[in-house]
Amino acid sequence: MQRREVKMKHQRNSAKTVGIVGMGLIGGSLGLDLQEMGYQVHGLVNKNQTAEKALARGLAQKVSIDPKVLANCDLIVLALPIQTLLNPDPTLFKALPPKAVVTDVGSVKGPILNVWEKLHPRFVASHPMAGTSESGVSAGLKGLFRNRPWIATPSINTEPEALEEVHNLAKAVGSRWLTSSANLHDKAVALISHLPVLISAALLKTLENEQDKKVFDLATTLASSGFADTTRVGGGNPALGTSMAAHNTDEILNFFSSYYASLKELEQHILQGNWMSLHDELTRTEAIRKIVFK
Amino acid sequence: MQRREVKMKHQRNSAKTVGIVGMGLIGGSLGLDLQEMGYQVHGLVNKNQTAEKALARGLAQKVSIDPKVLANCDLIVLALPIQTLLNPDPTLFKALPPKAVVTDVGSVKGPILNVWEKLHPRFVASHPMAGTSESGVSAGLKGLFRNRPWIATPSINTEPEALEEVHNLAKAVGSRWLTSSANLHDKAVALISHLPVLISAALLKTLENEQDKKVFDLATTLASSGFADTTRVGGGNPALGTSMAAHNTDEILNFFSSYYASLKELEQHILQGNWMSLHDELTRTEAIRKIVFK
Repeated sequence: MQRREVKMKHQRNSAKTVGIVGMGLIGGSLGLDLQEMGYQVHGLVNKNQTAEKALARGLAQKVSIDPKVLANCDLIVLALPIQTLLNPDPTLFKALPPKAVVTDVGSVKGPILNVWEKLHPRFVASHPMAGTSESGVSAGLKGLFRNRPWIATPSINTEPEALEEVHNLAKAVGSRWLTSSANLHDKAVALISHLPVLISAALLKTLENEQDKKVFDLATTLASSGFADTTRVGGGNPALGTSMAAHNTDEILNFFSSYYASLKELEQHILQGNWMSLHDELTRTEAIRKIVFK
Repeated sequence: MQRREVKMKHQRNSAKTVGIVGMGLIGGSLGLDLQEMGYQVHGLVNKNQTAEKALARGLAQKVSIDPKVLANCDLIVLALPIQTLLNPDPTLFKALPPKAVVTDVGSVKGPILNVWEKLHPRFVASHPMAGTSESGVSAGLKGLFRNRPWIATPSINTEPEALEEVHNLAKAVGSRWLTSSANLHDKAVALISHLPVLISAALLKTLENEQDKKVFDLATTLASSGFADTTRVGGGNPALGTSMAAHNTDEILNFFSSYYASLKELEQHILQGNWMSLHDELTRTEAIRKIVFK
């Protein structure tokens, strides 16, 4: 029964052609999974060399630098950096068939929704929350989206059928589907994704600013898994971190205030030698982490 | 050749008896590795039930709640929490043979050195930097110390032969050996181990303090590897975190100031929309992390 359902899904999907603009980590991974699910995948990239590599890696059945490759697509995924999504090339959006559903993968949704719902009648803002530290045409891998959240942020202008098409795509690659307003999404990711980059980077900066060379050297030698975990996102892709901050500025600044208040409270307990209160705080942070990652 | 050397080492070590006080993660792991290297291992614990479990897990050849179990030990490792090390039970330190070398495993060295070099003539303050998130008699595992730093912090009173005995122990379990002053050690771990716990806990506290239930719920749902990494140490053992703060207070408070300055600088770039400067900062934090974890 299970097997028959899967087969039927394959047949149905084989009619669909998905266009992917950008064949980096997200676009490439999507191409690999969708082909396996029976979709036709056409990729658009900006260099011939990238097209060759994408084809050699089997990221899509067709890859081209000519936007015409998108002509017969039913659904198009703009797997591009935020900066590029916010300043789209006119030759790109003119090449998108009006009948196709268009979605993006950007990690900030408000500004992208603003730009794109004016550019395409069937635009759906979405954000598959998956990643590795790799990027570029060799980064794509199978199963990247499995059990990961894929959140769409429809506005009152979003067409329900278009939203449903993106939902089907997310289901096809095994994602957990969610919807929220763009504003709520941007607040939530400011807290769990963008703020962490900055507080983690500040820790690396504290090490960098250490003036006593002996302390710096010993700290560097002794740093182990705790320091590695806490600094992982702050030592990540600078362009991505900058882009998040530049396009989700207000939400991030709000959480900065809340974060300072939290840190100051912990510092106060230490300053006052109030170890019982510090222990209570750390007991609560232990508990809340278990709620988040149950 | 390699094989013969190992065999010789086994024969030599078989003459040595190591006492381990406390058979939790560190004590238990040490017991497992040392027996494999041919040492006799005697464990001292505070409950009969723990003794039985430790024996059942093979953490030592003998385990007892009677301090006499340490009588014939050449080297004794105090694998106890900082709080217990700083307020040692008189029956414990009276049971330590004066001829035995005594070391500890505490993550703060200055205060422990102060207490213990008055209590035992052959005390060596040391800190094997290894761990998992587990604790208790079932936490010990083989190979925990392999390629991990083991740092000793001798004072002018530390006997060179005693220091060498601890060095041999660290080598036997595959650790990388270092020495520094206790003060330098405590500064370095404040930076790479204790401060991270607090900045990580403050991030969890920021989530906990979020007043908008919709934001809280969505953030909790979307939180993934980045948030998990950044909050790992702040969601760890509350007693351990409190103990670090209580016994390395001044060094931690110093780094708090430096950390605020770093975070404020990043915030300023965002407030001023100075994306080039933020990109430069994140490029430097990316580079420094690669220096630390090369």
